[in-house]
Amino acid sequence: MHSLASSSWPLANVSELRLDEDRFFDSDSAIRNVARELYSETKSLPLICPRGHVEPKLLAENTRFPNPAALLITPDHNVVRLLYSQGVPMERLGIAALTGISVESDPRKIWKLFAEHFHLFLGTPSGLWMNYVLHELFDVRVKLNASTALAVYDAIEDKLSSPEYLPRALFDRFNIEVLATTDSATDRLEYHASIRTSGWGGRVIPTFRPDALFQIASNAWRPEFTKLESLHFNPITDIASFVRALAIRRSAFKAMGATATDHGVTYPYTAALDSQTANQIFARALAGTATGDDQRRFQAHMLMQMADLSLNDGLVMQLHAGVLRNHNEQVAQHFGANAGGDIPIATEFTRNLRPLLTAYGNDPRFRLILFTLDESTYARELAPLAGHYPSVRLGPAWWVNDSIEGIQRFRQQTTETAGIWNTTGFNDDTRAFCSIPARHDLSRRIDANYLAGLVARSIIDLDDARIMARALAYELARDSYNLAPVAG
Amino acid sequence: MHSLASSSWPLANVSELRLDEDRFFDSDSAIRNVARELYSETKSLPLICPRGHVEPKLLAENTRFPNPAALLITPDHNVVRLLYSQGVPMERLGIAALTGISVESDPRKIWKLFAEHFHLFLGTPSGLWMNYVLHELFDVRVKLNASTALAVYDAIEDKLSSPEYLPRALFDRFNIEVLATTDSATDRLEYHASIRTSGWGGRVIPTFRPDALFQIASNAWRPEFTKLESLHFNPITDIASFVRALAIRRSAFKAMGATATDHGVTYPYTAALDSQTANQIFARALAGTATGDDQRRFQAHMLMQMADLSLNDGLVMQLHAGVLRNHNEQVAQHFGANAGGDIPIATEFTRNLRPLLTAYGNDPRFRLILFTLDESTYARELAPLAGHYPSVRLGPAWWVNDSIEGIQRFRQQTTETAGIWNTTGFNDDTRAFCSIPARHDLSRRIDANYLAGLVARSIIDLDDARIMARALAYELARDSYNLAPVAG
Amino acid sequence: MHSLASSSWPLANVSELRLDEDRFFDSDSAIRNVARELYSETKSLPLICPRGHVEPKLLAENTRFPNPAALLITPDHNVVRLLYSQGVPMERLGIAALTGISVESDPRKIWKLFAEHFHLFLGTPSGLWMNYVLHELFDVRVKLNASTALAVYDAIEDKLSSPEYLPRALFDRFNIEVLATTDSATDRLEYHASIRTSGWGGRVIPTFRPDALFQIASNAWRPEFTKLESLHFNPITDIASFVRALAIRRSAFKAMGATATDHGVTYPYTAALDSQTANQIFARALAGTATGDDQRRFQAHMLMQMADLSLNDGLVMQLHAGVLRNHNEQVAQHFGANAGGDIPIATEFTRNLRPLLTAYGNDPRFRLILFTLDESTYARELAPLAGHYPSVRLGPAWWVNDSIEGIQRFRQQTTETAGIWNTTGFNDDTRAFCSIPARHDLSRRIDANYLAGLVARSIIDLDDARIMARALAYELARDSYNLAPVAG
Repeated sequence: MHSLASSSWPLANVSELRLDEDRFFDSDSAIRNVARELYSETKSLPLICPRGHVEPKLLAENTRFPNPAALLITPDHNVVRLLYSQGVPMERLGIAALTGISVESDPRKIWKLFAEHFHLFLGTPSGLWMNYVLHELFDVRVKLNASTALAVYDAIEDKLSSPEYLPRALFDRFNIEVLATTDSATDRLEYHASIRTSGWGGRVIPTFRPDALFQIASNAWRPEFTKLESLHFNPITDIASFVRALAIRRSAFKAMGATATDHGVTYPYTAALDSQTANQIFARALAGTATGDDQRRFQAHMLMQMADLSLNDGLVMQLHAGVLRNHNEQVAQHFGANAGGDIPIATEFTRNLRPLLTAYGNDPRFRLILFTLDESTYARELAPLAGHYPSVRLGPAWWVNDSIEGIQRFRQQTTETAGIWNTTGFNDDTRAFCSIPARHDLSRRIDANYLAGLVARSIIDLDDARIMARALAYELARDSYNLAPVAG
Repeated sequence: MHSLASSSWPLANVSELRLDEDRFFDSDSAIRNVARELYSETKSLPLICPRGHVEPKLLAENTRFPNPAALLITPDHNVVRLLYSQGVPMERLGIAALTGISVESDPRKIWKLFAEHFHLFLGTPSGLWMNYVLHELFDVRVKLNASTALAVYDAIEDKLSSPEYLPRALFDRFNIEVLATTDSATDRLEYHASIRTSGWGGRVIPTFRPDALFQIASNAWRPEFTKLESLHFNPITDIASFVRALAIRRSAFKAMGATATDHGVTYPYTAALDSQTANQIFARALAGTATGDDQRRFQAHMLMQMADLSLNDGLVMQLHAGVLRNHNEQVAQHFGANAGGDIPIATEFTRNLRPLLTAYGNDPRFRLILFTLDESTYARELAPLAGHYPSVRLGPAWWVNDSIEGIQRFRQQTTETAGIWNTTGFNDDTRAFCSIPARHDLSRRIDANYLAGLVARSIIDLDDARIMARALAYELARDSYNLAPVAG
Repeated sequence: MHSLASSSWPLANVSELRLDEDRFFDSDSAIRNVARELYSETKSLPLICPRGHVEPKLLAENTRFPNPAALLITPDHNVVRLLYSQGVPMERLGIAALTGISVESDPRKIWKLFAEHFHLFLGTPSGLWMNYVLHELFDVRVKLNASTALAVYDAIEDKLSSPEYLPRALFDRFNIEVLATTDSATDRLEYHASIRTSGWGGRVIPTFRPDALFQIASNAWRPEFTKLESLHFNPITDIASFVRALAIRRSAFKAMGATATDHGVTYPYTAALDSQTANQIFARALAGTATGDDQRRFQAHMLMQMADLSLNDGLVMQLHAGVLRNHNEQVAQHFGANAGGDIPIATEFTRNLRPLLTAYGNDPRFRLILFTLDESTYARELAPLAGHYPSVRLGPAWWVNDSIEGIQRFRQQTTETAGIWNTTGFNDDTRAFCSIPARHDLSRRIDANYLAGLVARSIIDLDDARIMARALAYELARDSYNLAPVAG
């Protein structure tokens, strides 16, 4: 029943892959001409990548990418999920199974399967990013489909062998000014250390993400806590020593260049516990008896603690909420937590963040960057919060909303209340290294087009639009995350 | 206080009714030209009507429509509600009252009243559909208003007397390839049987809708259950025999051509009960003591059972959630359940569907089509679910959202995450038989215009857009509901 | 950390301030030309201001506005909050502190600070309204920024000294046909009385807002209740006498020209209490022991009572829901309740309003105007309610949504289901007197542009659009609030 659209795609002939110079701009010339002009001034700005999931190992080891499928398909969960949604089994895509399932290992077969289904991505950002990568990075000039699959594969494979396609060479070619990775709080940061001592000039910095240490009802908590304790060289017996250990880890991250922390929660609930309650809950965590409700309250308390530490160490606090991880239990069981389908849920910020903002929201030393997948909160909650609290900034349209329509809705629903200066520009949030320039390019185009629309309706003038375009493409990300190079 | 806009409408003169050839397309020529081209390729495709509320009796008996008011006003709840909202009493529209209210019976007076208020429908799809019907079906060339009302009435009345306006003749003229009705699980399907044996070639099939049998706390449950038992020829004493009886009814529907079931619930809650609990609840249903909470759990359990039966009989499962029926208790009491104002509520899919999707969502034999009235779930929940689970497809913009802006929002908020191939094309969902072509036409125009917008911004190219337009207008509906004609 | 964008704005030179004649219209000429034509017919219509927060004292005393900062910055919470959000301290804006904070008192310094940050308002309605006021009211022809700040200040200051800039002269110049203020139920309306006896012809009327009398768990309740009792000249001992006292206050408002009441609640919960329960809760209010839950139920009950009184006195009932007042407790503590950041929350109407609508929603003597900040309810709940119940009308896009995109979303998400005749035109809802014409102008432009978009897509024709434009700009507000002048 699932092969609905897969087998019968009628256009498997060879036709040209083009990237239109004016792509994604409104067709109305009053908008398009301005968009083109604004974009021409931002397209070559360096890339600020303050939030992402590239493995630091990649840039530390700087070895050849194995093959086109391992580069462009297997690690991209947006690609995998859409193929899966149309009946392509995970194992045929080479997704490593946890259980005894036999998995495709021939990258050419995986690539072919992908190419046969590439029409599924029509109208999606994944399709647009992929075309950008093929065209700009690998000089492919034919549309990908069943007929062209293997020729395209060979062309990519051929490039991957050359030194210009090693990760660091690409990093430089992509014009990345700074790339932040996301790292467990207990990460020893050896890859970051290795990059710093390598002599290579690329700026790669870690981000402190302690989520696993706050999930005290999870089976994964104990091993993570043990790692923390071993890094700490001291026993951690109560909340105070736990927070102390975290403060020290934050310092270690900062020493390696970090400017931010990152926190992912199901609900953005914040609330301070009195110290006795906090210690009782922590004791239950240590005893392995913490409940789901304990965890909920512990997380709420620890978010307050993290904000408190930010006052002193200056790390920018990022909070993203509203995803139910591993919705598909069958897939998670067979293929692991990253394949299991994360599905958003409705999110409430106004009440949940009130305790944290009451305590820290007016403090000039604090900055909180908020992300959501629940767009109904853009105009209703997030823009009003950012348009009032000095500490609050809005992260860009996140994940499923990092798309042409999604970015447009974000601007349309936040700018009028919060202005653009309470937003933080773009971040690519990706583990697909090669797609980074494609993502920034799409975002710069859509922001230019949004501003051009304002110019065309005389809401702003062209002089102002120019400055705003630069801010959205570059400065707001750099400044919001305190990433300006230290003067030397 | 309510005659705000009704009496003083100043344009009650005679002016031409025109249907612009390019209506509903963007005025920007880069979009309009492509939209026109795409639409020219889809406008004459046959109509697939996989979900609707036309009475099979209409096509079984094939008798003359009684009069213009009974054809176009009284049965159309969207028309009636908007007139009522501006102070026109139900009884003056000839809505049959349950209580002793005296009701207008002169169809000319009803039609006149409607025409006097027709400006209320400016900017609504009901207004556009009505103009299409008047222009295309009844060759009316004047705008409907107080001055033209009776002339228009006479023109329609005149047509209705001719054999070309009998239901089957219209069915053929409308180029309907297949029309699915919606039928109670206990329907004996005699009208469907009569159509099949009539020698007429129109394909009219039933849809299995067992809602009433799952509402065990309702007074209407017992009579419905009794009907089921009498059709079953066997006592139904526990969950197992209840499910067996339903499976047999499904077979009867399938034998009459059905390819789908349909399920309407307030919340899309799903959860399997253990067999003891299920039987205890069922016993309370039989005893007439089931509570609201019993019903909620029973419905959740029965949705799981329905999915389970679908694995074997292959019926596509449709689920629409989020309406509070008969919000207006006064109107429901006087004029019956269909007049009582159904008002949408917020709906949650991510958590509610998880048990069902965990159990059946990865099974290649299963297909689930989801509908919502809560557009905040499009991008947040529905597109991510459809963009991951192989079984899930999204039904089109439903009911109040079946409109120009509504269809556009649906595409804009689902395509980037789920693609178009996880959606099911259009269905008209109407009991207003004559409006069917108008609704398909509007939908085909808006989808063509949406795709043209993508072409104009170089998101897709024209070759791909052509194939997508055809899919949205025809193939996706046919294939999602397994409605391709059986070869032979 | 907060001076992100404030100090470095690079365009602090002198450039021309222009208001484009076609501003805010779509750039596509097929839309723009029609929008221009529609707007040309509405731009000079008198202003109906049925809901706002101008102090009646202003027009009663008719004295000179103190200075540009006190006129345009300090009282405009949208201006203050956005400056505050970017790190400008409240005290430097001259916001009067409750606590011992020293506050800037030089209006030139306050104005300069505002001007330096004026780029923060790019793309916001506050920025557009301010430019309109500067250009149209004060003949300013340079863009406001750090360089031009003091020259602009002097130009405004100069105008304020002339008699043409006294409040009543501006009222007449603004072409205000009627202005409703919002007044506590216990207001003695002496300013309104003074205006009526002054010989000046301006129509200024009060609106009855009893919120404080229903918040029985608040410390502010007792003093407010005492005021009511003293106005009533009779002891108020139970619900019946409380409602009687309110009915008499409503008469007093009506005698002073009021046509409406206004009710602000966190949730739009409605439910009638039996008289015993209501009296028990009222007794606890009198005893100072009412709980939060008591208040919730009392408010729900009193909304029902207010609707009941409307049947007899004909006052239109306005209900706006969904704001958490004084979210920022620190700011509220230091600078008072009006500075403390009101942040919207999700709101539910379908279930909450059902008791009230069941009791009164079908009564031709009743009118209920609904406002929301939760746009997810527009298409889902509000348009369906207004498109069914004869009593329900929708107020315009409110507060943070009173903006170009916000008004557009409101029309796009309500018109197709409810039509325009179930909406109530525009209201400015402002305490910033000078911004009133700017706000109406923006709204008339956006509504004209919305209708022009429908014309360009042949959804309506130009004849109909003309009538609709006039309705949206003028008649719907006048008629919805029963503000047509009494014939004489």
